[in-house]
Amino acid sequence: MRFAIGVDLGGTQLRAACVDEGGHIHTQRRVATSSAGPEAVIEQIIQVIDAVADSVCRDAICGIGVASPGPVDLRTGVARRAHTIAGWTDVPLRDILTERTAMHVIVQNDANAAALGEWHFGSGRGCDHLVYVTIGTGIGGGVITDRKLVLGRHGMATEIGHMTIQSDGALCGCGNHGCWEALASGSALAEVASKALAAGQPSMITQIAAGAPVSATHVARAAESADALALDLMRREGEWIGIGLTNLVHLFAPDRIALGGGVSRSMALLEPHIRREMAWRVMPPLRDTPVNVAQLGDDMGVLGAATLIFEQPALPMT
Amino acid sequence: MRFAIGVDLGGTQLRAACVDEGGHIHTQRRVATSSAGPEAVIEQIIQVIDAVADSVCRDAICGIGVASPGPVDLRTGVARRAHTIAGWTDVPLRDILTERTAMHVIVQNDANAAALGEWHFGSGRGCDHLVYVTIGTGIGGGVITDRKLVLGRHGMATEIGHMTIQSDGALCGCGNHGCWEALASGSALAEVASKALAAGQPSMITQIAAGAPVSATHVARAAESADALALDLMRREGEWIGIGLTNLVHLFAPDRIALGGGVSRSMALLEPHIRREMAWRVMPPLRDTPVNVAQLGDDMGVLGAATLIFEQPALPMT
Repeated sequence: MRFAIGVDLGGTQLRAACVDEGGHIHTQRRVATSSAGPEAVIEQIIQVIDAVADSVCRDAICGIGVASPGPVDLRTGVARRAHTIAGWTDVPLRDILTERTAMHVIVQNDANAAALGEWHFGSGRGCDHLVYVTIGTGIGGGVITDRKLVLGRHGMATEIGHMTIQSDGALCGCGNHGCWEALASGSALAEVASKALAAGQPSMITQIAAGAPVSATHVARAAESADALALDLMRREGEWIGIGLTNLVHLFAPDRIALGGGVSRSMALLEPHIRREMAWRVMPPLRDTPVNVAQLGDDMGVLGAATLIFEQPALPMT
Repeated sequence: MRFAIGVDLGGTQLRAACVDEGGHIHTQRRVATSSAGPEAVIEQIIQVIDAVADSVCRDAICGIGVASPGPVDLRTGVARRAHTIAGWTDVPLRDILTERTAMHVIVQNDANAAALGEWHFGSGRGCDHLVYVTIGTGIGGGVITDRKLVLGRHGMATEIGHMTIQSDGALCGCGNHGCWEALASGSALAEVASKALAAGQPSMITQIAAGAPVSATHVARAAESADALALDLMRREGEWIGIGLTNLVHLFAPDRIALGGGVSRSMALLEPHIRREMAWRVMPPLRDTPVNVAQLGDDMGVLGAATLIFEQPALPMT
């Protein structure tokens, strides 16, 4: 049996797991991500790797995959930026970990790693073309076409949250107007809800938020209780999601779409609206493209990171 | 020297060329495409192939590539539909031509073949990732990522004209609203111009059209003469093109974009507007993506078709 170590480097939590080729997690270790700077975080990464590596024969470990937030230069293995980790800029993570562990290391952007994991072990198993979308604070994702990740120049492709779907629409954090992320992310939903409440629209969202800033979760909970404003916001949210998914179907013609992220937890509420929008927008021969909730859930990060190793065999370490 | 025969199956003209590996056309033959139905067109295809095949030693010909309008089922080599050719539905073109010529045959959608040709022999030479866009009556294109065409399920990917870029925008021929094609194609430009003229806006477009239905070419000619309405229409056209190109940059992160089709002949007028739009919409690390006019021009079809053979080695004919 071959194993890989998957490292999920998150802004709040850092997690490593020893994963076998069947996607079973043998051991895992979690720590709260340090805010003391990159050196401290790198020491944490090495500690969790060491802890899980000892659970199996080291010779059976093919390598270490790391899912890193933000862009990663795939030629050099440098993690460019991670807004969620203090001081994290241009960290040569691959070279550091290779030197410290003497193992084969691959570093990849977390959304791409998740797409690969969902394809290899989750709802995309067995298909040739998968689009993975994660809708939470922002919108990200990765695309597998002909059984390979779409990477583009310097690995910068599939910035799917930054497709313009309404050219004169809401301003996005990236500076563009009408990006999918600016209209359909959890943050966008929360912002539209806050504005409606500020304008005096009655809704139980206010009670549910109980003084905290309104979040997408508050809106979803109010909609589950048949709150009229929340239901209307969830309808619009589903429609925006459907418009973006239509574009991804037309561009990549995937066998399946997998939806992850916090917003996908409200799939029961969103699904009718997503489907209604796609039913008329998608071209007929592509209209049957299945949209599923991603299966790997909380293990997405470590399984995706481990898949980097299983899908890309170790190079000779000369 | 190896050769391939490239067949460009157009609605008005059918063309075959014997092409060498360097992209030089040794012989070519053109005929007006028959309107007498698929059987007649197939006979024409075989005649032009025979005519050009005799120009070199037959043993040096690796195969026949066919660029066919409309969708092609790549598993079966069946050309599904071609609205521009009378009665053309589900024609098993690959099998028919293989049987009649005893050569290796590959049939591909014309936009994908053109993308491959432009990458192999044109402005995309030497790059790993190319987006090819053709803007004419409609908008089509093809994408090379990691030196391979993005094909998707049944070869139906990269319907780039049918990205929604303005969700409440103009109705598209496909039934969706706000497709790139409905806003930025030559037909869309002609339609907006016609409406402005019908509303009484003064312009020399009327004189240039001289009673014929207004076309994108008429608008471009008026703009070249500094006609105010035409200049404004070309500005808007450039902006719409820039919005769609922004999406393609964010999705595919190509090394370069190649623009073909009739509208690209007005690049001098359009370019400042395309660049201005992309300068603020594209994310900073991708903002330097070059946009060039496609180089292969009129030979795009036959060279792209021949590239199908050079890029995909012949399978043993068992």
